[in-house]
Amino acid sequence: MEGVDYLSDERKKAQFDVEAMKVAWAGSHEAFNVFEKFSKPLLDRKDLFKNSLRKAAYAWKLIQDLRLSDEEAKWLRHYIDEPNYTDLQWEMFVPALEGQTTEEQKKKWLPLAKNMQIIGCYAQTELGHGSNVQGLETTATFDPQTDEFIIHSPTITSSKWWPGGMGKVATHGIVYARLIINGQFHGVHGFIVQLRSMDNHFPLPGITVGDIGLKFGHGAYNTMDNGVLRFDHVRIPRNQMLMRVSQVTKEGKFVVSDVPRQLMYGTMVSVRQTIVADASKALSRAVCIATRYSTIRRQFGSRNGGPETQVIDYKTQQSRLFPLLASAYAFRFVSEWLKLLYTNVKQRLADNDFSTLPEAHACTAGLKSLTTAATADGIDECRKLCGGHGYLVSSGLPELYAYYVAACTYEGENVVLMLQVSRFLVKTVSEIGIKQPVGTTAYFGRVKALMQNNCTVQTAKDWLNIGTIVEAFEARAARMAVDCGQRLAKFENSEEGFAELSPDLVEASLAHCQLIVVSKFIERLQQEIPGKGVKDMLQVLCYVYAFFLIHKHQGDFLATGYLTSKQAALANEQLKNLYSKVRPNAIALVDSFNHTDHYLGSILGRYDGNVYPKLYEAAWKDPFNDSIVADGIHQYIQPILRQTLHSAKL
Amino acid sequence: MEGVDYLSDERKKAQFDVEAMKVAWAGSHEAFNVFEKFSKPLLDRKDLFKNSLRKAAYAWKLIQDLRLSDEEAKWLRHYIDEPNYTDLQWEMFVPALEGQTTEEQKKKWLPLAKNMQIIGCYAQTELGHGSNVQGLETTATFDPQTDEFIIHSPTITSSKWWPGGMGKVATHGIVYARLIINGQFHGVHGFIVQLRSMDNHFPLPGITVGDIGLKFGHGAYNTMDNGVLRFDHVRIPRNQMLMRVSQVTKEGKFVVSDVPRQLMYGTMVSVRQTIVADASKALSRAVCIATRYSTIRRQFGSRNGGPETQVIDYKTQQSRLFPLLASAYAFRFVSEWLKLLYTNVKQRLADNDFSTLPEAHACTAGLKSLTTAATADGIDECRKLCGGHGYLVSSGLPELYAYYVAACTYEGENVVLMLQVSRFLVKTVSEIGIKQPVGTTAYFGRVKALMQNNCTVQTAKDWLNIGTIVEAFEARAARMAVDCGQRLAKFENSEEGFAELSPDLVEASLAHCQLIVVSKFIERLQQEIPGKGVKDMLQVLCYVYAFFLIHKHQGDFLATGYLTSKQAALANEQLKNLYSKVRPNAIALVDSFNHTDHYLGSILGRYDGNVYPKLYEAAWKDPFNDSIVADGIHQYIQPILRQTLHSAKL
Repeated sequence: MEGVDYLSDERKKAQFDVEAMKVAWAGSHEAFNVFEKFSKPLLDRKDLFKNSLRKAAYAWKLIQDLRLSDEEAKWLRHYIDEPNYTDLQWEMFVPALEGQTTEEQKKKWLPLAKNMQIIGCYAQTELGHGSNVQGLETTATFDPQTDEFIIHSPTITSSKWWPGGMGKVATHGIVYARLIINGQFHGVHGFIVQLRSMDNHFPLPGITVGDIGLKFGHGAYNTMDNGVLRFDHVRIPRNQMLMRVSQVTKEGKFVVSDVPRQLMYGTMVSVRQTIVADASKALSRAVCIATRYSTIRRQFGSRNGGPETQVIDYKTQQSRLFPLLASAYAFRFVSEWLKLLYTNVKQRLADNDFSTLPEAHACTAGLKSLTTAATADGIDECRKLCGGHGYLVSSGLPELYAYYVAACTYEGENVVLMLQVSRFLVKTVSEIGIKQPVGTTAYFGRVKALMQNNCTVQTAKDWLNIGTIVEAFEARAARMAVDCGQRLAKFENSEEGFAELSPDLVEASLAHCQLIVVSKFIERLQQEIPGKGVKDMLQVLCYVYAFFLIHKHQGDFLATGYLTSKQAALANEQLKNLYSKVRPNAIALVDSFNHTDHYLGSILGRYDGNVYPKLYEAAWKDPFNDSIVADGIHQYIQPILRQTLHSAKL
Repeated sequence: MEGVDYLSDERKKAQFDVEAMKVAWAGSHEAFNVFEKFSKPLLDRKDLFKNSLRKAAYAWKLIQDLRLSDEEAKWLRHYIDEPNYTDLQWEMFVPALEGQTTEEQKKKWLPLAKNMQIIGCYAQTELGHGSNVQGLETTATFDPQTDEFIIHSPTITSSKWWPGGMGKVATHGIVYARLIINGQFHGVHGFIVQLRSMDNHFPLPGITVGDIGLKFGHGAYNTMDNGVLRFDHVRIPRNQMLMRVSQVTKEGKFVVSDVPRQLMYGTMVSVRQTIVADASKALSRAVCIATRYSTIRRQFGSRNGGPETQVIDYKTQQSRLFPLLASAYAFRFVSEWLKLLYTNVKQRLADNDFSTLPEAHACTAGLKSLTTAATADGIDECRKLCGGHGYLVSSGLPELYAYYVAACTYEGENVVLMLQVSRFLVKTVSEIGIKQPVGTTAYFGRVKALMQNNCTVQTAKDWLNIGTIVEAFEARAARMAVDCGQRLAKFENSEEGFAELSPDLVEASLAHCQLIVVSKFIERLQQEIPGKGVKDMLQVLCYVYAFFLIHKHQGDFLATGYLTSKQAALANEQLKNLYSKVRPNAIALVDSFNHTDHYLGSILGRYDGNVYPKLYEAAWKDPFNDSIVADGIHQYIQPILRQTLHSAKL
C-alpha cells in the first residue's frame, strides 16, 4: 500500500501517550498550537474571527522577530491558511499606495502601512456595483472652501460591500468614488479615508461600518470581516486623493499627470498572476487528499475473501482523478511562466514601453479565469472521488472548496474576464496580415496553414509527439477565433455582434487559453530537469493533460474539422494507456507537492494513510458527543415516544 | 422590471410596522416562527440539532392534529426543509419493515413505528464499506443455545458510519450484518436491533453510539445526526431478523423462502424515484433565485447615465441560466413518468411478474445519477450566476448546494450507478436480434437504421422538429452503446473489458439516459396541456433542453458521425434564437414553480425583488455586528497598531 508510514512500527513501541508528551514538551509556549485548524468549524463566528486575529498577531510577531523578508512573510501567511485582514494589507492596500500615490504621499503613508501602524482595506465594490467600476455611486465632492473632499454614500446600493478587513479591523480604506468638482463628474478615483479612531477603534463620525454576514463554508472565508460601509458627508483633506495619475488642485482644477494610466493595469496583472499560482496550490491540495485516500479506500472486487480493490485502480476513478493531477502540474508551470512574463512587463513599464501590456493583460485575465474555474470544479470533483467521507468537514475538502470557489468571482468575474480575452482575440484576428502577432498569439501568424492543414495522426502512437499536440491546440484555437471573427464581421453594429456571439467568443477564448497552458507545459519540458525519471514523468502528465482536454473538448476539435473522429478516439485511447503509467507513481507524485499534514488539514489525506482509526477518533472528540443523551432528546423526542406530545411544552 | 410586487404601492401606505404586527397577530402561538430557517447558520451544532428536533416535534403534532395523510405529511416535511431523523423513519425504516418482514413481524413492529413509539434508523453503511454491501463486516452469529443472534463489530472499519438519525435519536435500527451459523457465512441480512433504552434513552449495554461530526455547509445536513455505532456482542432474539426472504430456524437452519429476492429491488426503485423528483425541486429553487436576481442585478451598458443593463439580458448569462431553467422542467416531467413506471412495476411485482424490473432498475439508477449530478452542478452554477452576493449564506445558495450535493453520493454513488446502467445496456446490445427490446430501450429495435442514416437537417429551422431531435438522441445513444459493445467483444475476459472500457461505458450510459429525459419531455408535450401559451412555452423549453445537450455533447454527436459540424452549428444557432423566446417569460416561468419565500430561503430570490435593502438590513441583524468594536480588537489589533506587540499577552 502506498503512503504507509514506514516508522509506524517503531512509533507503536512508545510506552507513553505521544499527544500528551507533545503538550508536555510545548509547555506554556502556547504558540505551538496557535495555528491549528481543525477546531475552526466548531467555533462560532465571533470566536472564529477572534481566533483569526490571534493567529495574525502571532504571525506578525514571528515576521518581526525572525526578520522575514516580504516573500517569506507571504509564504508564512499562505501556510497559516486562513484569510484575514493582513491579506488585504499586503496584497491590496500597500500595492495600491505604491502604485497610485505621489512621492510625497508615499513618504507619508507607506511607512505607516508597512509598520502596520495603520491597517488598510480596499473599498471598491459596492452593494449594487461589482465588475463595472465606472458605475460606482459613492461620491467625492471637492469643497474648495475647506480644501477637502466630501465622501458620501447617496443610496443603499452605493454602500461599500465586500471589502475584506473592512468590517471590523481596518483603520483606513482606499475608497473608490466618483470625483465631482463644481458639479462636474471627473471619473472614478481612489481616496485614503480614515475609518476608525486610532484611540478606541470606534468608527469616526459620519461612518457606519460593519460585517456583511456569513459566507459559504463553516470556517472558510468567515475568518474574514468582509464589510459594509456608508459615508455621511465625511470630509478628508485634498491630499488624500491618490494623485499619481490625476490631481485636483487647491483651486479645484482637475489635472491629468503625464504618468500613463496603463501603469494601473500593472497591479491587476500582478494580483491575477498570484491567483494563478494559488490555483495550482489549491488544486494540488485536493488532488493530494483524493489520491492518498483512493489508495486506502477499497471497494468491491474481493476475490476469495481477500481484500477488496483499491478504488484508485478503477479506470473510472483514474479518468477523473489523473487529469486533475496533471492539471495541478500544468497550472504550476503556467504560473511560473506568468511570473516571468510579469517581471518582463514590469521592466518594460519602467521604461515607458507599454507594447506587451495588452497581451499580458489578456493572458493573466484568461489564465485567472481558466485556472480558478478548473480548480474549483476540480476540488469538488476530488471531494466526490472520496465518496461519502469526502462530505465530512474533517476530510478538509468541503472547506477547501467553500474557501476556494470565491476565486471564480473576485478580482474579475470569470466570464467577464473571458470576454476581455475575446476582445483581445477579435482584435488580433482583425489585424491578421496587418500586424505581426507576438507572444502567445504568434500562432496567428501561421493562420493560413492552421486553417488548411488537418491533423495527420494515424495511430495512437502518433499522438505521442509534442509538435502534433501543439499544432492541434493551435489549429482549434485559431479556427474558432477566425470563425467568430467572420461571423462578427456580418453585424453592422460590432458591439451588438459581440453581445450576440458572446457565448461562442467565451468558448474561443477558452481554447486560446488552454493552448497557452499546454504550450507552457511543453516549454517547461524542453528545459533541463534533473533527477531520475522526473522529466519522463512530467512528459506523461503533460500528455495526460493535453489528451484529457482533447477528449473533453472533442466537440471543438471535430467541429473545426481539424480532427477526424478516428483521430479523437486514438487520443482517448492513448489517454487511457497513460493512466497505467501514472498509477504506480500517483502517491509519489502527490508527495512531491510536499504538503504538510497541517497544510492539508484532512484526515483522508494524511501522509501516513491512517484514515479509519483517525476518522473514528475524531468523531468522538466532537463536542456534540460530550453528552450521551443529547440536549433536546428529553424535550422533543421522549414525548413523541411516550405519546404525550399533546401535553408537552414544545 | 419583472418580479415586482404589484401590491407594493398599497403596502407602502401602511402606517404601522408590519413585521411587528405579524408578531402581535401570532401572539403566544409560537409555532408561527418555529419553522423559520434564516437563523440556522448562526446556531452552533448542538442548538442546530435541538432546534431541528423541535421542528420535527411540531411537525408530528401538526400531522396528528390535522390528521394528515401520509402523502400530505411527506409534503409538510419537505417544505419544512430540514433533514432530520423523521426522514429516515418514513423513507427507510418503515418501508424496510413493510418490505422485508413476515406478516407476524409486521404486526408487531409496524404499529410501533407508524405511531413513532419507536424511532428507527437504517444501519447499513460502515466506515470501511459503502457501495459494496456484500463487503460489510458486522457479524450476526446465531446462538442456538439461547435462540439469539449475537451482533458484533469485529474491527474499526466495521463501525456503522453515516446512518441518519442514528447518532442521537434512534431507539432501534435495522442493522445489516453477515449472518453466521455454525461458522458458516450465509450472506448479508437485516436485523432489528434496539439501540437505546426506552426509559432514559441511554445506549443499551454493548452499544457505543454517537455522531460522526460536521458535514459540508453551515446548517445543511448538520441538522441530521448521522451516526457511528459499534456492537460488543449484543444479543437479540432470533425473530428480529428480517425474515420475509430468508429465515433462520430455531435449530439454526438457514431457509430461503419462495418470496423472490427481486422484491427487494422494488424499495430501491422507489427511493431513487423520489430522489429524481427532489432533483427537479432543488434545481427549480436555485434557478428561481438566480433568475429573479438576474433581473434585479444590473451591470455595465449604461447609456447616457441611464440604468445599467439587467444581467439577464446578457447572452452569456442566458446561455448558462436558461438551460438550467429548461432542465428543471425536464427533470420534473421525467420524474412524473418515473412515478408511473414505478406504479406499474409495483403492480407487476404483486403479480409475480418481474419482466420489467431490470429496465425499471436501470432507468431509476441512471436517472438518479443524471439528475442529481446535473442538479448539484446547476445549483452551484446558479450561485455563480449571482456573482459575489451568491457567495453570501443569505443568498440561500451555498446552503442549498451543501445540502443537495450529498444526493450525488447517497443511495448509490453516481458513477457506480451509471456502471449498472452500462451492464444493462451491454446486455441489451448483446441481445439485439435475439430479444425484442422494450420500453426505454425500444430504439435498439431500429438499430440498423439508426447506425446507417445520418441527420438530414439543412437549416436552423429544420431542427424545430420533435422527430428530428429524438432521432438524433437515439442515434447518438445507439451508436455509442454499439461501439462499446463491439470493443468489449474483443476482450477475452469480459469483466476485464468492462473495467477497461468503463469510462466510455459511463459516457454511453449518460447518452442513453439523456435520451430518456428528452423523450419523456416530448411525450409530455403530446398530452393535453390547458392554458393560454403554456404548451408553446413548454415546447420552447423542451427545445432549449435538447439543443443545450446537443451543444454540450457535440463531441458525441460528431464523433458518431450522426451530425455534421454544420448541423451542430445550426442547432446551436437555434438554441440562441430560443433564448430570446425564454427571456420575456423567465420570471413567469420561475414564478410557476410556486415556491414561497420561506421555501426559497434566499434574499436574492425574494418574490418582490427587494434585494438590496434586505441584504443591507440582514447584515445589521447579524449578531457579529452586535458590538461596534469586535471582540479581539483590543487584544490582537491595538498592540499591532501601537507597536506594542512584543509586550502584549497574545
